[in-house]
Amino acid sequence: MDKILNHTAAHVLAYAVKNIYPNTKLAIGPATDSGFYYDFDFATPIKDEDLPKIEAEMARIIKEDFAVERKEVTRTEASRIINKNKEIYKVELLHDIPRGESITMYTIGNFTDLCAGPHVDRLSKIKAFKLTQITGAYWRGDEKNKMLTRIYGVAFAKKSELDAYNLWQEEVKKRDHNKICRELGYYTSSELVGQGLPLFTAEGATILRIMQRFVEDEEIRRGYLHVKTPSFAKSDLYKVSGHWQHYKDSMFLIGDDVLNDNVMALRPMTCPMHILLYRSELRSYKDLPMRFAETAKQFRNENSGEMHGLIRLREYTLSDGHIIVRPDQIQQVIDECMDLVKYILGVLNMEDDVSIRLSKWDPNNKEKYIDLPDAWEWSQNEIRNALKAHKLKFTEADGEAAFYGPKIDIQAKNTYGKEDTLFTIQLDFALSERFGLTYIDENGKKAKPYLIHRSSIGCYERTLAMLIEKTMGNLPVWLSPTQVRVLNITNAQDEYCEQVKRALLAADIRTATDLRNEKIGLKIREATLKKIPYCLIIGAKEQEAGKVAVRTREGQDLGQMTVEEFIAMVKQQVKEFK
Amino acid sequence: MDKILNHTAAHVLAYAVKNIYPNTKLAIGPATDSGFYYDFDFATPIKDEDLPKIEAEMARIIKEDFAVERKEVTRTEASRIINKNKEIYKVELLHDIPRGESITMYTIGNFTDLCAGPHVDRLSKIKAFKLTQITGAYWRGDEKNKMLTRIYGVAFAKKSELDAYNLWQEEVKKRDHNKICRELGYYTSSELVGQGLPLFTAEGATILRIMQRFVEDEEIRRGYLHVKTPSFAKSDLYKVSGHWQHYKDSMFLIGDDVLNDNVMALRPMTCPMHILLYRSELRSYKDLPMRFAETAKQFRNENSGEMHGLIRLREYTLSDGHIIVRPDQIQQVIDECMDLVKYILGVLNMEDDVSIRLSKWDPNNKEKYIDLPDAWEWSQNEIRNALKAHKLKFTEADGEAAFYGPKIDIQAKNTYGKEDTLFTIQLDFALSERFGLTYIDENGKKAKPYLIHRSSIGCYERTLAMLIEKTMGNLPVWLSPTQVRVLNITNAQDEYCEQVKRALLAADIRTATDLRNEKIGLKIREATLKKIPYCLIIGAKEQEAGKVAVRTREGQDLGQMTVEEFIAMVKQQVKEFK
Repeated sequence: MDKILNHTAAHVLAYAVKNIYPNTKLAIGPATDSGFYYDFDFATPIKDEDLPKIEAEMARIIKEDFAVERKEVTRTEASRIINKNKEIYKVELLHDIPRGESITMYTIGNFTDLCAGPHVDRLSKIKAFKLTQITGAYWRGDEKNKMLTRIYGVAFAKKSELDAYNLWQEEVKKRDHNKICRELGYYTSSELVGQGLPLFTAEGATILRIMQRFVEDEEIRRGYLHVKTPSFAKSDLYKVSGHWQHYKDSMFLIGDDVLNDNVMALRPMTCPMHILLYRSELRSYKDLPMRFAETAKQFRNENSGEMHGLIRLREYTLSDGHIIVRPDQIQQVIDECMDLVKYILGVLNMEDDVSIRLSKWDPNNKEKYIDLPDAWEWSQNEIRNALKAHKLKFTEADGEAAFYGPKIDIQAKNTYGKEDTLFTIQLDFALSERFGLTYIDENGKKAKPYLIHRSSIGCYERTLAMLIEKTMGNLPVWLSPTQVRVLNITNAQDEYCEQVKRALLAADIRTATDLRNEKIGLKIREATLKKIPYCLIIGAKEQEAGKVAVRTREGQDLGQMTVEEFIAMVKQQVKEFK
Repeated sequence: MDKILNHTAAHVLAYAVKNIYPNTKLAIGPATDSGFYYDFDFATPIKDEDLPKIEAEMARIIKEDFAVERKEVTRTEASRIINKNKEIYKVELLHDIPRGESITMYTIGNFTDLCAGPHVDRLSKIKAFKLTQITGAYWRGDEKNKMLTRIYGVAFAKKSELDAYNLWQEEVKKRDHNKICRELGYYTSSELVGQGLPLFTAEGATILRIMQRFVEDEEIRRGYLHVKTPSFAKSDLYKVSGHWQHYKDSMFLIGDDVLNDNVMALRPMTCPMHILLYRSELRSYKDLPMRFAETAKQFRNENSGEMHGLIRLREYTLSDGHIIVRPDQIQQVIDECMDLVKYILGVLNMEDDVSIRLSKWDPNNKEKYIDLPDAWEWSQNEIRNALKAHKLKFTEADGEAAFYGPKIDIQAKNTYGKEDTLFTIQLDFALSERFGLTYIDENGKKAKPYLIHRSSIGCYERTLAMLIEKTMGNLPVWLSPTQVRVLNITNAQDEYCEQVKRALLAADIRTATDLRNEKIGLKIREATLKKIPYCLIIGAKEQEAGKVAVRTREGQDLGQMTVEEFIAMVKQQVKEFK
């Protein structure tokens, strides 16, 4: 993306908006990795329908081929121009420019904007552009400020680039899990319930239930203690854990006394609960490592702009776990956590879709991070060594740690290129201390354990979203909510179809029938659109032979087989996938 | 329980309290089904340790053998006595006695109390008594009023009755699920988290997980659509459903604007969510009945006095379900719901522990109930007919319905004799209307469906509590969190023990080992105290024979068998229980 060109296009957008809506106040208008945007304070809100009008005005301005003129000005001069236009947001921006730094204004035609530049020299350099969407955005990204209107766009130096962009956008949208899941009827949402709170249908919930049971069984097999703890607690708990001090803005508070601290809160994380379970009995060095796991509902008060499909939710289900370890067990346990993550990635066939990041603290951000430089350095080293021992490729990122310690983040990108954390393994040197955890060591003395936070399949909803985008909705057979649809050719086969369905259900294969009086072609097409792995087509011939004709969602004809043969084939596939 | 005698004992208690704490104000002091209590407003709070002192003073007063004297008085005279003693609560009570009704005062020694009686004639009739506990209680049971101190006691006409009572109390306490579960380490709790929010250990969570998977699988088999919906929603949803108007006091509100209505709330019930799923698509008469089910976390803001163990919680897990039916399907669906409830009762072996109640509205309580007398009468009849068709014994109770319709409540009593609802089936004639639900009938026209709310295994935590009390913690094998413990006689058998454990785990039998260097008697005793169904005792003899010696938690010696024989036996038992 040409950032200079896109930055100039942002000015053109502002120019056009001021021409059409003279009372609009301007905020900021930068270029981004994917185009540009400008934030406006409109006197009357505008809508998607208004974008073509603005685009037309932008095209008119570009056609004039104005030069883009840069001028260095004094603070007084800048202030005069801004005040004349009553640009209240620009006043704040000007105020933020440190004394002694140069101040520049850029002018196109009769539109002048405070801006550090740079820009292209003439508007004719912009050969193609489009406005892509309108969203809300708080002034300076702070919820306490006014909600402004953000208009997004993208600009190109060649017309052909816009065509390519449009094609790519269509492709990207086809993969959007939110679109696919809604088309497949996996979930719905409602204005009455609110944003970031999907309602899963039986089809969608079936996928999550199967994932959940698979993960629980696997974790129990690996020595995890699968527990069940409350969704909320008194703020007292989060004051001890430090969430209250470091994370309160993202928490949902409960009760009618939220202005004081005498409230409860929906849990943002499950660690304090598992720590209490550890602390409920005296523990010996022989008990460690103690691995707590839970299929845990968690809650995060996301801003409305941040929520997207199943990737960012206000309530989500985490394959959460906390391992209490002796200092000498840290490496071994991080190893075993990586091993489980790699196993899960293998099962989901997503090994090549992730990148690994060592997320470190930011020593300059004392508000976000516990101020123990030595502990940070030491623990970051522990993790780095574990990653190296595993011969894994990873990057390091400052300021991405949790407030209590560094972590390994297994990152994945969604179809729009936005990266999110899929799985995580975190070393915590703070929480154990805050809760005063101990164990009795080999000499009968009290010693301090460490805490490792980890997820296995991550957030179920988010992992499902990534899997849907990867497979375009063609989930592996073991996860498909309906694995088989049985189709009759005529009603003469209805009874045999039901009999086949019962046999499959008895073999734990999720099966439905479609016995409607519709053409078989239509019925196959509908089953394929629903991404059901197998259609069993049953006509007089199949019934007579006591067989079924098998067709895959990819359109492959596997020919006739007996029900027993088909069951054996599906069971083998399910087994192999896991 | 002799109510007259106990009522007199309540007066003796008040007399004793006034002697020791002259500044105490008296509220009310009735006899109950299980003894008596008196509510006091103490100048300085008293504690459990103060009870013996009060008991001693009561004993002294009873020894004086005062006569209990009844006197009818005028309102003016009553008012004079009460005001002289500054009994502010009695002033209110006197005010509540309707004009024209007779007013009586009862006197013992120099203690006089406003009271309708009756009482025994002399205190010597009280041959034995004890004070049993102190709790808080709001004046007139209303949270908005002052919290008073309630002292409970019990009195008897024979000394031997007190002895029997004490014995019975010990027995009852032994069955208390809260005591048993904590001894078995099934859950813990924490002041930091708050009341009514247990933290389940792996052992406790295992029981709940097994129950949950069993119920989900059974419901899916019976045609339920198992969905997954959010734990909270905007108040908008509950305004449409009517929970906001009829149930708000029991709901947890989320957000910092709770005084206005612009908030969210933790869900008190799941019905509105399932209704939204129904409403998300156009439905035909052929789609009905549509059976939605969910393993649903629900939240209720219980007062602290109402919470008890796992029976009354602030967060609990319901086997919830909502069936949308055509009017002509009501009887059939209530039938199938009863059938599932009876199946679950059979599996839990609790058929004889429940009573069935038809819970009806109270036509005089317009605040609690939707005011549609005809709909109430009609729907109560529908349910009555369904129960009669099932040839079930049931009672009818006014004022026990939900605000939206009548219900069948399957009731069970805990060890203390307190009755709670275990399972429920509810016919709802209001909610479908409020949400504007429709289906397309056979003539292509919009028609209105009805809604049936139902639970199958009820609230998992509560049902587990009842089951624990019934079995004294000896859960059936299929629900026991650890089914088998393998014990070595000496360390020479360690490897063989591990081998046996692996074989059992591979057969999905939950197994642990105890290979400590302790006497076998101690290890058996500990396993028995943990209510583990089977101990496999392995010495040199068993190892040599490739067998295991099997011992039950009831102390029965089942002799030697091969691992395969043992696995077959346990698997058969698990299968039979279900």
